Order: sequence, then C-alpha cells, then structure tokens
Amino acid sequence: MIVEIISVGTEILLGNIVNTNAAYLAEKCAALGLSCYYQDVVGDNEERLLGVIKMALSRADILLLSGGLGPTQDDLTKEAAAKALGRNLYLHEPSKEMIASFFQKRGLEITENNWKQAMMPEGCIVVDNPNGTAPGVIIEDNGKHVVLMPGPPNEMIPMFENAIMPYLNELQPGIIYSQTVKICGVGESKAESMVEDLINAQDNPTIATYAKTGEVHLRVTARAEDEKEAKKLVKPVVKELKGRFGNNIYTTQEDVTLEKAVVDLLLANHLTVSTVESCTGGMLAARLINVSGVSEVFKTGYITYSNKSKHKILGIKKALLEKKGAVSPEVAKEMAKGAALFAKADVAIGITGIAGPEGGSEEKPVGLVYIACSVRGRVDVKEYHFSGNRMKVRESSVSAALSLMRESILAYYSEVTFGEKK
Amino acid sequence: MIVEIISVGTEILLGNIVNTNAAYLAEKCAALGLSCYYQDVVGDNEERLLGVIKMALSRADILLLSGGLGPTQDDLTKEAAAKALGRNLYLHEPSKEMIASFFQKRGLEITENNWKQAMMPEGCIVVDNPNGTAPGVIIEDNGKHVVLMPGPPNEMIPMFENAIMPYLNELQPGIIYSQTVKICGVGESKAESMVEDLINAQDNPTIATYAKTGEVHLRVTARAEDEKEAKKLVKPVVKELKGRFGNNIYTTQEDVTLEKAVVDLLLANHLTVSTVESCTGGMLAARLINVSGVSEVFKTGYITYSNKSKHKILGIKKALLEKKGAVSPEVAKEMAKGAALFAKADVAIGITGIAGPEGGSEEKPVGLVYIACSVRGRVDVKEYHFSGNRMKVRESSVSAALSLMRESILAYYSEVTFGEKK
Repeated sequence: MIVEIISVGTEILLGNIVNTNAAYLAEKCAALGLSCYYQDVVGDNEERLLGVIKMALSRADILLLSGGLGPTQDDLTKEAAAKALGRNLYLHEPSKEMIASFFQKRGLEITENNWKQAMMPEGCIVVDNPNGTAPGVIIEDNGKHVVLMPGPPNEMIPMFENAIMPYLNELQPGIIYSQTVKICGVGESKAESMVEDLINAQDNPTIATYAKTGEVHLRVTARAEDEKEAKKLVKPVVKELKGRFGNNIYTTQEDVTLEKAVVDLLLANHLTVSTVESCTGGMLAARLINVSGVSEVFKTGYITYSNKSKHKILGIKKALLEKKGAVSPEVAKEMAKGAALFAKADVAIGITGIAGPEGGSEEKPVGLVYIACSVRGRVDVKEYHFSGNRMKVRESSVSAALSLMRESILAYYSEVTFGEKK
Repeated sequence: MIVEIISVGTEILLGNIVNTNAAYLAEKCAALGLSCYYQDVVGDNEERLLGVIKMALSRADILLLSGGLGPTQDDLTKEAAAKALGRNLYLHEPSKEMIASFFQKRGLEITENNWKQAMMPEGCIVVDNPNGTAPGVIIEDNGKHVVLMPGPPNEMIPMFENAIMPYLNELQPGIIYSQTVKICGVGESKAESMVEDLINAQDNPTIATYAKTGEVHLRVTARAEDEKEAKKLVKPVVKELKGRFGNNIYTTQEDVTLEKAVVDLLLANHLTVSTVESCTGGMLAARLINVSGVSEVFKTGYITYSNKSKHKILGIKKALLEKKGAVSPEVAKEMAKGAALFAKADVAIGITGIAGPEGGSEEKPVGLVYIACSVRGRVDVKEYHFSGNRMKVRESSVSAALSLMRESILAYYSEVTFGEKK
C-alpha cells in the first residue's frame, strides 16, 4: 500500500521548527512495508490544505497528517479533511468529557475554543490522546484511510505507536516484523560491502542499512502470515549477520543505544568507569550519563582541556607533554592511566585530539584524535582520522570511544580467560 | 514573491535522514521576505520529480530544489528540471575542468559517471560548489526561477549563502535586511508578551520570535530601497528592544551563540572558568568547548555524578550531602566553591539536579535543578523546575547555567564598580 505523509503548520514553512515528525513517520512506514512517494508540508490555510489532501487522495491509499488539531482558529486540519471527504463535523460527547477531565485534573480553566477539539467528522474513528487535548482521527472512505494526529511529537509519537501503527499493520495481509542489528567499530562502506550479497539475494526478509555517527544499523524485516512465521524468517538472517560481524554487534534490541550497551557491559562485570576528555570536553561523559542508572558505575569524569590541567589533575609529566605534544598516543595513554588512578576506576578512557577549525598542522591535521582505554591496567591506544567540522569530529570521537571501551573490556576478559585456561 | 522548497531523495522518504535542508531554506526565505506555501519531498524518480516540479511551477515564482545532483543513475534532478522547462543538457566544459581538478587535488581517481555532473541545462547559470563535485544550477524561464542545489548540507548551505541568497535578494524590489536580538534568562511567553505591542504595531520592520531551549531570538526585518535605508528602519526597533530586555540580550550578532557570548565575556575580563556537573554530566563543558579558542579560559572541568565523587574530588562534607541531599542549593554552592578552589579558576559553576526518569520524590521531583555560580568568591544559587524527558531537563539545565554565568559575571562587575565609586 502507498502512504503519503502530510505535515501541517505554518511554523514548518517558516523554518521555526525542523520537521522531525515526517522523518519519524517515514521510518515507521518503511518498517511497516508501506511505500511512500511523497511528503508534503502545508500551512494552516484551509484552501491549500484541502488541495494537498485531494492530491494525496489521488495518489496514495493512506494519508498520515500531523498538526492543525489544536483549539485555535488557525487549526483547520479536521475541517479540511472532512470537506475533502464530504463529511460534516459533530460534537463527540466522549471527547468533550475527556477534554473537560484533562483540564480539571490539572486545575486549569477551560476556555470556549477548547470544545472545537471535540468536533469530529461523521463516521470517523476517534483515537485517544493521553498526552493532550486533541484526539486523533481515522476516516475510512472508499478504500482510503485518512489519519489525523496532533503535531507535538510528545503527543503524536505515543498515539502513533499505541494506536495508529497497529491499525496500519491490520490493513495489510499478514504482519511485518523487524529486528535491528546494531554494529559499531566497522565503517559504513565496509559494513555495506559485507552484506551486499545478502541484500541482493533476499526479498523476504529484506535488509536495510542505516548509518549513524560511528555506527551502522542493519534492519531485517520480514512479512508473513503471523508473528511466529515472520520471526522464523528473520532468525536465520540475524544469525548470519552475527556470524559475519561477531563482537562488533553491540545489540539486537531496538531500544538499546551504544552508550547503554557499554553501561550494561560495565554493570554486568561490576566495573566502574572514569573519563578524561580534552577535545570532546565532556561529551563522552554526557552520553554515558544519558543512561538512566549509570550512577552504579560512573565515578568521576575530568575535562582537562589545557596542558596545565593535564599536568595538574592527572599528573602527566610536563616533559612528555612538551616532547610528544598533547595530541599524541603517549598522552592519551597517560590520561587514561591517570584517570584510573585518581578516580580509582576499573575502566578509564582518555581522549585527546584536534577538533579544529584551528590548531591543525601538516604533521597533526584537524581530525587527528587519539583515544586510550585502560581496563584494570591493560591499555589500548588507537589513532583516528575524522572528517567534518568541529562538532562532527567531536561526535565521531565520542562514538569511537564508546566502541573502543566495548572492545577493550571484551579483550580484557578474553585474555583473562585465556590466561586461566593455560 | 512565492517560493516552493522541494527536497529530492529517497533517503528522506525512508526516514533515514531528517530534512534539515528544508528547515534551513525555509528560515532563510522567511528572512528574505519570500512567502512559502508548500514544501515537498519526492524520491529519486524522474516521473514523480517531473510532476512535483510542474506543480510547483504552477503555484510559485521560485523553486528551490536540493538533492539529486550526484553522479549516479539515481540522481535525476537536473534531468527532470530540464525536461519540465523543455531544455536539453550539454557538456559544460568549465564544470568538467573543475571536477577533474577536484579529484586531482585529492589524489582520487575519476570515474566515468562523474562527468554526468558537468552536464547542464541549456541557457542556465552554473553555480560554483567549492565543497563538492556537483555545481548548482539556476534556470530562468518565463519569470520563473528554478534553483538546483546539492543535497549534503555542508555543500548546500555555503552555496546558498554565497550565491543563491544574493541572487534571490536581487529578484525583489529593494533589499531585505534583518538583525537578530538574542535573549536569555527570559521565558518564551514572557518575552512574547513584552514585545506584543511592537509586533502588532509594525509591518516594516517586522518582528518575529523564535524560541530555542532557554533562549528567545527576536528577528527584526526591514525591506527598503537600499541597505542604508533598511538599517535605518531596523536600528530604532533594536534600540527599543535593548531598552526592554537590557542585560538579558546576550548578542545582536547572527553568528554568536550563547556559549560564545559567555566565552567572549570571560575573555574580555581575563577570567578563567571551571565547571562541575552532576546530572548534566559534562554537557555544559562540552558546549563551552564547542567554542573554538576556549582554551584561553577553560581550566579543568569535573563530572561528579556520585556522592562519593562530590566528597572526594571537591571535598564536600559527607554530613552536608546526607543532611541536605546531593540535589540541594547548599551542595550546588559547595560544588562551585570546590571547583573554583581546586581548579584555581575565577569563575566556577556547579549543577546538581534530578534529570529523571527515576530518582524523583514528592519533595524533590524530576526536573528540580540547582545551579550555583561563583565569581571570585561571590556565589549565586538558583532553583529551577524544568519539564520534559531526561535529555530535555539536561539541555534546559545547560542553557540556564550559561545564562546564570553571564548574569553572575555582570553582577560581580556592577557591584565592584559600585564599590569603587563609593
């Protein structure tokens, strides 16, 4: 089936906000096996909105609209959709009650225009919105499905996941099931070439690659009569990918990020961690600390941007800093060792590099970064050459550091085990 | 004049990337005084692309397309635009030479398909692309202006700023000039209510408000015959805004971020700075260190996520931590004082709070954050209540900390000056 994604709102046309709703819906629709040929953005103008809806009805089976369900005169999506399908609006009593109770619970006074949100197109399905006062709407008409959702992502996303996604899945024969294999420490083009034969050979399940900074995600998607059958199709492909990428796969779970995988690995091995950062200036620590529950493992983090600070806080010898330079494998190593010592942490990671735009030289160009990871005294140091602007170099450094942490911890345990066996 | 923004690329339709190009172009077009009624996204499919271009030609004067100018068979934007306007493509020799030299400089081998990028629609204006191999294209036809730009933002944005924006400005009678007044420490709705009368009273210049996390930007835009005249219109409005918002205005320069304004203030006063972060876990330091040249002022940063670390690294008394709790104004104050002492910094800032989703209580709910700023021993502490998820609370905390730093430094100097005058 063909879907068209329509975002409604003058604030998008003015560039006040980035249209993340469309990207979110597009990714979900692709995962559902729906084809999307067009996305549209249109302002809060009934005539133009009506034109876009009519055009979309002529070329798609499913219309996903977000935005324009609010209480103001500017919010016209329901009105335009009803007009496009020749339906009237009526006062939907349960929605009226829901809106009244929403305001009451929050001790807010309800204004007259809020009742506009309880007006619904005849014969529609009203969709609950637990996070706001604008219910969603599904209108079925002549084999077409028009879905209206609120614009704020914190209302639209839960509504889509809880109600709209299952509805869309039902429209298609069988079901869609997908699993994502998340990989770090392998470049995008290398990862793609490693699965090219699989991508070309398969059409159910399909394999799609998604590149993130320092990561590659492979999504394996199958269509089958039921979930059991779909899982049976996905399983051998995921197994094959595990064989090919081995330890570079950090998770096959949708909701596990790279930083969460690292924190989980630390927790599982009862390891504490400390970070010491120069060019990334706290970004690595900030990403680790985005994992709720990190307090079990995170000790102290240091940001030693200046040479003086590297010397004073971590005890790195001035002579070494002068001889090798702050951006050197030797200093990265001493940073990690110093952090391990002073924070009394099992695992410590040091990052030093040239993020630019200034500070580069022929010998040490912008983008050169050294990262060291110490695991109970066993230290790995790696050299990286990243491209892009200051922020991009720093983001790439953080992803590489997380990847190196995983690698070093796994290497430490494989050596320990190997030693014990001897 | 009416503009339509068309983004070309299957990767947008699949949700692999967020369409930031459209938001960027929309904001710039609004600043140029162009009206935008529609944005479209279409995949790398010649027929559908042709349809979108024809539709846009029927309802807009200017078409801004990005994407689909690459060397592969999938890149069809030039072909579709030429067809829509009934033009042939020819080999543009200067572009061919430029592409050859681009590859040669980088020591890369050129492949046959790269010459496709030198094929140009008859009678077009070819636009230089110093950051890639796909030149831009402007086709003028019957009063319409069709602009083709490469998709990667690091190629599209410089091309737009250097060549396309001046071109678009020329198309309109007179010129557009705008200045942005950037405000921190004032909430969005308060800022809006403070300028509502101005917004309603003016139409040249206009005032538009843009809310960012912890900031509000007011853009004052005038249209006039020449730049001198436009600046004359903008000046009194900016002056009026300065009178209303006073010290809460951190800059009126387009390219100055809040963190840069803070770093500039530190530099101007020869102040060094240290950060100590709990819930934000390095995000404040990371933002400061995103300012190139921060090495003059940034000493050491600490991330003391655990109580143990707060005690050990900063010497905060265990009794205080137990009695008041880690999230308390007292501990925030001790954090700032400790960082100032141990890092020997003039300015030190401490952040402690509950970012959630766990860790909240009736007395200390998720979103409660204390921030302290010490300027040469003079300490301010503030209490904040932020909403949103873990990341949102942390981002709001960082913006609030930058805002408080400015405020505390300015307060310190106004008190010192006042003291001297006595």
